[in-house]
Amino acid sequence: MIEQVTAYIDENRNEFVNRLQGFLRIPSISTDASYNDATRQAAEWVRSHFEWCGIEASIVETSRHPCVIADSGPNGGGPTILVYGHYDVQPIGDPSLWTSPPFEPRIDNGRLFARGSADDKGQVTTHLMAAEAWMKAAGKLPIRVKYLIEGEEEIGSPNLLDLIKQQRDRLACDYIAISDTSKFDEKTPAITYGTKGLVYKEITITGPDSDKHSGSFGGTIVNPANELARIIASLKDDKNRITIPGFYDDVRKLSKSERKRLAELPFSDKKYAKLLGVTRLAGEKGYTTLERRWTRPTLDVCGLFGGYQGPGSSTIIPAKVGAKVSMRLVPDQNPSKISKLFDKAVMAAASPGVKVSIQNFGNYAAYVSPMDTDGMNAAIAAVEKGFNRAPVLIREGGSLPILPMFKKVLGADSIMMGFCLPNCNAHGPNEFFDLDDFHNGIRSAAHFLNELASQ
Amino acid sequence: MIEQVTAYIDENRNEFVNRLQGFLRIPSISTDASYNDATRQAAEWVRSHFEWCGIEASIVETSRHPCVIADSGPNGGGPTILVYGHYDVQPIGDPSLWTSPPFEPRIDNGRLFARGSADDKGQVTTHLMAAEAWMKAAGKLPIRVKYLIEGEEEIGSPNLLDLIKQQRDRLACDYIAISDTSKFDEKTPAITYGTKGLVYKEITITGPDSDKHSGSFGGTIVNPANELARIIASLKDDKNRITIPGFYDDVRKLSKSERKRLAELPFSDKKYAKLLGVTRLAGEKGYTTLERRWTRPTLDVCGLFGGYQGPGSSTIIPAKVGAKVSMRLVPDQNPSKISKLFDKAVMAAASPGVKVSIQNFGNYAAYVSPMDTDGMNAAIAAVEKGFNRAPVLIREGGSLPILPMFKKVLGADSIMMGFCLPNCNAHGPNEFFDLDDFHNGIRSAAHFLNELASQ
Repeated sequence: MIEQVTAYIDENRNEFVNRLQGFLRIPSISTDASYNDATRQAAEWVRSHFEWCGIEASIVETSRHPCVIADSGPNGGGPTILVYGHYDVQPIGDPSLWTSPPFEPRIDNGRLFARGSADDKGQVTTHLMAAEAWMKAAGKLPIRVKYLIEGEEEIGSPNLLDLIKQQRDRLACDYIAISDTSKFDEKTPAITYGTKGLVYKEITITGPDSDKHSGSFGGTIVNPANELARIIASLKDDKNRITIPGFYDDVRKLSKSERKRLAELPFSDKKYAKLLGVTRLAGEKGYTTLERRWTRPTLDVCGLFGGYQGPGSSTIIPAKVGAKVSMRLVPDQNPSKISKLFDKAVMAAASPGVKVSIQNFGNYAAYVSPMDTDGMNAAIAAVEKGFNRAPVLIREGGSLPILPMFKKVLGADSIMMGFCLPNCNAHGPNEFFDLDDFHNGIRSAAHFLNELASQ
Repeated sequence: MIEQVTAYIDENRNEFVNRLQGFLRIPSISTDASYNDATRQAAEWVRSHFEWCGIEASIVETSRHPCVIADSGPNGGGPTILVYGHYDVQPIGDPSLWTSPPFEPRIDNGRLFARGSADDKGQVTTHLMAAEAWMKAAGKLPIRVKYLIEGEEEIGSPNLLDLIKQQRDRLACDYIAISDTSKFDEKTPAITYGTKGLVYKEITITGPDSDKHSGSFGGTIVNPANELARIIASLKDDKNRITIPGFYDDVRKLSKSERKRLAELPFSDKKYAKLLGVTRLAGEKGYTTLERRWTRPTLDVCGLFGGYQGPGSSTIIPAKVGAKVSMRLVPDQNPSKISKLFDKAVMAAASPGVKVSIQNFGNYAAYVSPMDTDGMNAAIAAVEKGFNRAPVLIREGGSLPILPMFKKVLGADSIMMGFCLPNCNAHGPNEFFDLDDFHNGIRSAAHFLNELASQ
C-alpha cells in the first residue's frame, strides 16, 4: 500500500502547500492573550482536517489554549504511535525585520516564509498530510495512530501535564513521534535523541518611586539599570562559565563515545558562524561548538527593558527595569533546583536600596532517549526513504518540555524526526520551511507508519 | 513703583495660573520630531505674550526648534539682564505612570501637575508674568531686560552656541538670570551657583543577523544582551567609583570651606531617601550625599532596550540591544575628553564577535559662578522679598549647558533663582509646580529687576 500512499503525496504536493498556507495565516501566538481567538481557530483547523480525513478528533479545553486529540482507532495489532506537535507560535518580534508580513505566507525560491512555517505548524502538517494520504489512498492507517496537537508549547506547556494525566488511557502508546527539531544541515536529515531543559526567568528591579532626574539625583541612590547590568554580569565568569553556586553540580558528564560521535559529524565552525551572521563564535572554555550547543547548560538574556528607549536622550534614573533570562539545562540537572539556585544567586548579588523580584515562565527538564529500539530503527529507515539519504543522530539545544512528561506519565519514549533547516529562523524574523523538506517530511511520516507496521 | 507691581501680581494670581495652564497644554517635546508643530506653537505663545505686554519680541529660527528673543529696549542706565529659559520639555515616559494626562494641567492641593510645569515652562513663566506686571502696573521695566527662551534645552541645546555667537550684540548683558533649578526644600528658597556638565551616550550592540533561538544556538555565540550588561557593569567598581581610565584626572577638589558649607545645610539623608521613595541611599564611598549629588561626577544608565519585552517568555538571543547612559561632570572635567575616554573604555571592554557602536547625545561642561557680585546680591535680596525667607546658596546635580557658553561668548555670569521643589518630578511622571512657589517666584522675579535698578 505504501506505493499508493507515496503516489498520493507526490500528486498532492502543491495542494499540501496550499493547506499549510491556510494554517499559517492564523496568528496563533500563545504568549499574548489578545490572540486567543486565533489559537482557538488554529485548533479548530487541525480538528477539522482530521474529521475530513475520517479520523475521529476532538478539542480538549485547558485553562488557556485548547488542545486537539485524534485517534485512528484500534487496528488489531502492531504498535501504537502518538504524534505530538503544537499549533501555537512565538510572537513576531520587531515587525520591521520581516521581509513580508509574518502571517501572510510567501514562497520565495522554494522556501515558504511565515511565522510557524517551521516551528511547528509546518512540521505538524507533515504528519497531518501523511495521515490524509494513508486514509485517502489506502482507506486506513497501517497502525493505530493517536495525535496530540497542543497550543501552549511556546509558553512552556503549563497545562499539558495535567491534561496527559487526565487523558492517560486515551493517549496510551508505545512511542511518541515528534517533528519539532531540525535537519543537521541542508543535505542531511537528522533524528534527534536529546533536548535541553529550560528555566525561564524575568528579573525586575525597582528603585525610586518614579523615574528621577539623573542630574539632580544621580550618585545618591542605586540606579536599577546599572544594578540589573551588574547582577546579570555577575552570573558568568570570564571563561563563560555560569557562576551560580551549585549550577553544574548535577550535570551529566559527556561520555567519550558521545564526544567522538559529535566530533565526527560534518560540522564547520566557520559555516555555522556565517549561518548566524556573526564574525566569531564564543562560549564556555574547554568544549567544542557542538558540545556547548547540545550538551552544556547555558544562560542567555532574551530581553532587556526599562527607562527611556525612544530616540535621542532622556536623562533619567529609571524607576523600574527588567530582563528576561533563559537557562537551558542538560540531563540530570533538576529544573526546580536550578530555578531556586538562580533566585538565590540573583538575590544574593542584589544591593540593598532596590527591590528585586523574579518571576518564573518555564521550568522543565532535559531529555535523552534510548537509541536501540524498534521505534528508533523504524524512524531511521523512514527518514532515509523519505529524504533518499540516511539521517544522522544528534542532540538539540532547544527544549521540548513534554518529553520527560511523556516518559513519566505514559511510560513511552520520544522519537524526534526533524524536517526543517537549522537556520530556519524559528523564533526570529523571516522563519521559513523549505518546500522540498516539507514534501520529504510528509513522505517520511508516511513511511514511518509503514515501517512500524512491517516489523 | 515696586508696590504697584507686586499689587498687580497679587491681584492677578489666578489669572497667571490660567496663563500657565494654556502654555502647559502645548506638548513641546523637543527630542521627538513628531512634536515639531507643538514646539513652534510654544515659541509663538512666548513671543505673543511679550508682544501683548508691549515688549518687542521675535522668533529666531534654528535648524531644529525656534528660539524667542525679546528686548525691553535701552533704559538710560543701570545693568542689563538677560533672562534665559526654555519652552521645550522632556518626553513623558510611561503614560500609565501619570495620574492625569501630562498635557492636561490638573490642580490638586495647591499643586499644578503637568509635563513642563516646573521644568521649565512654569519657571520661565514667572519672568514673563513679572515683565507683564511691570509693564502693566508701572508702564515700563526698571532696567533693560532681554529674554532668550529656547526650544532645545532638553536635547542639549545643539544650536544655541551658534545662535548666541550670531546674536552676540543683541544679547549683550551684565548678568544672565535663569530659573531652571529648584528650592532647597519646601520651606527654603535657593540660589544655585554651580551645575554639572553632561556627556550622554547610546551604546548599541549587534550580534547575530537576527534574533536567534536561545536553545538551538545558546552557548555558541556572544549574546549581545549579556555582553551589554557585562560592559555596563565594568564601568563601576564595588565602591561605586567609575572605572573609566582617566575619568577623575581633572576633577576639581572640593575645598574645605565648601565641604563645611554643604555640611551646614539643613539636609536629612532619611528625608531625602523618603522623597525619592527608596529605602536606602547609595553612591561613591567617602562623600556625603550632598557632596555626591552636587560635586562628584556620576554615571547612570537611563534606559535599556532590546530583545523580547512583551508579556511572558520568548526564548531568543537578541540580535541587537542598547543602553542610554548619562554622565554628569564637575568643574575642570573636559566633556570632549570624557566622551573619548568613555568610548575607549567601552570598546576596550567589548568582546570580539559582536559589533559595538556608540552615539553621542550631549556634551557640555560644568559651571560654577562667582559668589560676590552685585547681581548675586540683588538676587539674594529679591528672593528673600519674594518668599519672605532668605535663600541658601547651593549647587545642582543637573546640567545647564548654556552657562559655560554664556560665559565664553557674552562674558557674563549666570544667576540661578530656582522656584520649584526638589521633588517636583522634573523628567519623571506627575511633574508639578507648587502654586505658592509660582506666585512667590513671580514676586521674586519682579523684585530682582527693582533691586538691580536700585543699586
